[in-house]
Amino acid sequence: MSEKPEYSPKMQTLLERVAEFTDLQHIMAVLGWDQQIYMPPGGAEERGLQSAALGRILHEKFATEEFGQLIADLEAEVGDLNAETDAARSVKTVKRAYEKQVKVPLPMLMETIKAQTMGHEAWVKARAQSDFSIFQPHLETLVDLRKQYADLFKPYDHIYDPLLDDFEPGMKTTEVKEIFDALRPQQVELLQEIAEKEPPDNSFIKQHYNEEHQELFGRHVITCFGYDWQRGRLDVAPHPFTTEFGYGDVRITTRYLKQDGGSALFSTMHESGHAMYGQGVPEKYKRHPLGGASSLAIHESQSRLWENIVGRSKAFWSHFYPSFQMLFSQHLGGVSLEDFYRGINRVEPSFIRVEADEATYNMHIMLRLEIEIGLMEGTMNVADLPEIWNSKMQEYLGITPPDDAVGVLQDIHWSGGMIGYFPTYALGNLASAQLWEKLLEENPDVPDEIARGKFDTILGWMREHVHQYGSKFEPQEIMLKATGSKITPEPYMAYLRKKYTEIYDL
Amino acid sequence: MSEKPEYSPKMQTLLERVAEFTDLQHIMAVLGWDQQIYMPPGGAEERGLQSAALGRILHEKFATEEFGQLIADLEAEVGDLNAETDAARSVKTVKRAYEKQVKVPLPMLMETIKAQTMGHEAWVKARAQSDFSIFQPHLETLVDLRKQYADLFKPYDHIYDPLLDDFEPGMKTTEVKEIFDALRPQQVELLQEIAEKEPPDNSFIKQHYNEEHQELFGRHVITCFGYDWQRGRLDVAPHPFTTEFGYGDVRITTRYLKQDGGSALFSTMHESGHAMYGQGVPEKYKRHPLGGASSLAIHESQSRLWENIVGRSKAFWSHFYPSFQMLFSQHLGGVSLEDFYRGINRVEPSFIRVEADEATYNMHIMLRLEIEIGLMEGTMNVADLPEIWNSKMQEYLGITPPDDAVGVLQDIHWSGGMIGYFPTYALGNLASAQLWEKLLEENPDVPDEIARGKFDTILGWMREHVHQYGSKFEPQEIMLKATGSKITPEPYMAYLRKKYTEIYDL
Repeated sequence: MSEKPEYSPKMQTLLERVAEFTDLQHIMAVLGWDQQIYMPPGGAEERGLQSAALGRILHEKFATEEFGQLIADLEAEVGDLNAETDAARSVKTVKRAYEKQVKVPLPMLMETIKAQTMGHEAWVKARAQSDFSIFQPHLETLVDLRKQYADLFKPYDHIYDPLLDDFEPGMKTTEVKEIFDALRPQQVELLQEIAEKEPPDNSFIKQHYNEEHQELFGRHVITCFGYDWQRGRLDVAPHPFTTEFGYGDVRITTRYLKQDGGSALFSTMHESGHAMYGQGVPEKYKRHPLGGASSLAIHESQSRLWENIVGRSKAFWSHFYPSFQMLFSQHLGGVSLEDFYRGINRVEPSFIRVEADEATYNMHIMLRLEIEIGLMEGTMNVADLPEIWNSKMQEYLGITPPDDAVGVLQDIHWSGGMIGYFPTYALGNLASAQLWEKLLEENPDVPDEIARGKFDTILGWMREHVHQYGSKFEPQEIMLKATGSKITPEPYMAYLRKKYTEIYDL
Repeated sequence: MSEKPEYSPKMQTLLERVAEFTDLQHIMAVLGWDQQIYMPPGGAEERGLQSAALGRILHEKFATEEFGQLIADLEAEVGDLNAETDAARSVKTVKRAYEKQVKVPLPMLMETIKAQTMGHEAWVKARAQSDFSIFQPHLETLVDLRKQYADLFKPYDHIYDPLLDDFEPGMKTTEVKEIFDALRPQQVELLQEIAEKEPPDNSFIKQHYNEEHQELFGRHVITCFGYDWQRGRLDVAPHPFTTEFGYGDVRITTRYLKQDGGSALFSTMHESGHAMYGQGVPEKYKRHPLGGASSLAIHESQSRLWENIVGRSKAFWSHFYPSFQMLFSQHLGGVSLEDFYRGINRVEPSFIRVEADEATYNMHIMLRLEIEIGLMEGTMNVADLPEIWNSKMQEYLGITPPDDAVGVLQDIHWSGGMIGYFPTYALGNLASAQLWEKLLEENPDVPDEIARGKFDTILGWMREHVHQYGSKFEPQEIMLKATGSKITPEPYMAYLRKKYTEIYDL
C-alpha cells in the first residue's frame, strides 16, 4: 500500500485488513462457483464444511474488538463519514459491514451457513421432484433464522428493513412499498390494454436451437458490448449467475433451454451487464473497501439495461438479426426483422420469473415481496406457501402453475436464506430506464450507434456515472448524481408504454 | 466426533483441529484446480494473493505452541508412535506435519508461496516461447528457497534428504541412489537390445483422432476400472493431474494431443489410478490425519499400474480393441490387434517424459534426479540447465531436444518449487510391478479377467493392501506388508524384460 501516500497509517492498516478480508470472500466465491457448476454430488457435504470453516475464519478475524477499535479511531480521524472522499466512505462501508458482522453471534452464523447449505441441497431435490414438502422444513428453519437476524437490529421501523438493507443500503420497506404502490396500477393498466390485443407470433423462437450456435452468438454479442474475456469466462449453470473472484476475474454463466432459442442469449446479455459493472469498478479499488457495487438494484439496472433496453430493442436487432438469422436459418429463414422483433417482445403471463417479458416481470417481484413480508411479519406460514403462491399468480397474472417446480420452488434465493433480495430486481428495472432516459438525453445518437453495432458510448456512460464509484455511494446517491432524482417508476413506465404502444398498436 | 468413542478427549480435540486443517487444504486444492483449468489470465495476481492468504491462515492456525503441546500430550498418552493403531499413527502423522510447519519461519513461507505463484506464471510463458531465460531467475529463487528449507532440517545425511522426505516419508537419498544404481545398467542393457531390433510401426496412432470419441472411450475405460463419478469428474488441463477436495470429490484431468490418439487415453487411465487410490481411502478417514496417501511413490504405483501394466497389456486390448477400432475405424480399420498392441508399446527415445514408453521412462527420471541433486549440492547452476539437460538427454537416450520447451522447460514441477518429487515416479514404476507380481501370484486368473473386461479383483486387491490404510503406513511399510519386501527393481525389470522379449523377439 506504500504507493498510496494519501492514506494515513491507520487507514493503511484498515486497507490491508480489508484486502485480506476481500481475498477470503473471493475464495468463498470460488467455492460457490464450483459448487453450482462442476462439483460432483459426493462433494456436497465436505464443501459445506469447507465454506463453513472459511466463514468462521472470516468472522473470527474481523469481528474482533481490536478491529472495531481501529474503525472507531478512523471514524474520529475522518470526521464526517458522508464526506465524499474515499477515506470517509471506506470507513463508512467497513463500519457498516463490521456492525452487521459483530451483531451476529458465532453459533447463529454457523447455524445459518449450515442451514443454507442444507437448504440448497433440499431445494435442488424438491424442485427436481416438484415436491415442496422436501424443502418446507428447511425453509422454515431459514425463515426463523432470518427473523432472529432481523431482531438483532432492533429497533427497526419494520422487521423486513434489516433484510432489505443487506442488499439495498439505506433503503426502507416503506420506500419500496411506496414505489411499488405507484407502479402497480400503471403496470396492471398496461397489461390490460395489451391483453385486449392480438399477441404477435413467437413460435419461431420456441423451438430447439442448436446450442453451439447459441453460444457462438451469445459470446459475440457480449464481446461487442465490451465484456472483457481476459478477466472473465462463461460457463453453463442450472441457474445463471455472475460471480467475482477479484478485479481480474469476473465470471458469468448461462443456461440453454431445450425449446427456446432466446432464453440463453438474453440471460447471457443479462449476466454480462452485471459482469461489466464488476469489471468497470476501477483498479484502484482492487481489494479495497470500495471495490464492490453500490447495491443489488444498481447491479440489476446494469443487467436489465443490457438484456432488455439494449438487447430487446429494434435498433439492436436491426444490426444483429442478419447474423442471427444466418445461424438459425431453418427457424428464421422466413421471419422478417419486424416479426422477429415483435415476437421476442410478446407479452405473455408466464410461470417463470427469469423468463418473464418486460411488461409482466415486475408482477412476479410484487408477489414475492408480499410473501417475504408476510413470512417475516408472521402473517403467512411456510406450509401455506404453495397455495398462497398459486392464488397470487392467478390474481396478478391470471394463470396457475401446474406444479410447484414452476411455482414456489422456481427460484434459488430462499434456499440460501436470501430474503430481501427480490425487490431489488424491480427496483433495478426502474433504475435501468431512469439511467437510460438520462443517457439518451445526453447522447441522442445512441440508438443509431446501436443499430451500427457500437456500444462504447453506453458502456462509457455507465463507467462514468455508475461503475467508477464502486461501492462508494449508496444506490439513491448514485441515482441522484446520475439522473437528478431518486429511484422513481415514471421513466420505466414511460419506456414500457412507448415500446408496447408501438408493438401492440395500443 | 461423538460417534467415535474409541478416541480419548485429547485425541478428539486433535481430530477436530485436523478436520478444520483438512478443510482449508482442500479449499487450497479448489483454488489450484481452477487456476490450472479455468481461470482467465487476469485472475492470476489476485489468485496468488488468495492462496497466500489461505497459506498464512493455515500456518497461523496450526504452527502454534498450543497445538505443539497437544501433540506432545498425545505422544505421551499414546506411547509408541509406531504402534499399529490409528491413534498412534495419527499422532505420528500430525507430529511430522507439525514439525515441518513450525520449522519454516512465516516470512520464508510467504516468500515461497509468492515465488511459486510467480514461478508458475513465468514457466507458462517461458515454455510457450521456449525461452528459458524468462524462467531462469524464478528458478534460481526457488532453488535458493529450497536450500534454505533443507537447511532448517540440519543435521541431515544429504541436503536432498529433507526434500525427498516431503514426498517419500522416511526415504533417504542414499536408498534412492542405490535402487537407481541397481536399475540403471539393467535398463540400459534392455534398451540396447531393443535398439538392435526393428521397431514396430505406430504411425496409425500418431494421427489426429476425434477428441469427442477419445473422451467417450477414456470415460468408458475408467468407468470399467471402477472410477466413481459420483465422487469425481474429468476436465481438460494443459498438464494432467489429480486433485482431492475431500473423500467425496476426487477429480482428474487429461489433455488431447493433436497428432496422437493414445496420449489422452493413457493419461486418463494414469490419473484414474491416482484417483481410485484417493477414492479408496475409507470413509472413516474423512477429514482425518490418516486420510491421505502413504507417499507419492505408492500413489504412482497405482497410476502406473492402471496406465501401463493394465492399460498397455495384451489382455486389456484383446477386450477393448474392437470398440476402439470401431470408434477410429478410419485409422485402425486395417490394423490387427497384434500390430496395434506392438505399436502402442513401441520403444523410442523421446523428449517428453509424460509421453515416454515404459522402457525409457525411468531414464527421464534419473536425468532429473541428477540435476536436482546437483542443484541442491551446488555443483550445478540454474543458468547451465538447458545445456546440462541436453547433454544428458544425448548421453541417456541418444537424442537432443530441438528447443527448451520440449527440454528443460517441459515439466511443471520446478515452477512450483517441487524438488524431490521426480524420483517418486521411478520408485512408483518399481512398486507397481512389485505389487502386480504379488497380486498375480495370489490371483493367477487376473489376466483372463482383464481380457473379459473385469477389473474388480485388481481394484479389490489394491483397496485391501494399499488404499484401506490411507496414510497410516510409510511407503516401505506398505510394500513390506503387501509384498514381503521393500521397493526393489527386480520385479519391474522382470516385467519389462518379459514384455519386450515378446514384443521385440529379443
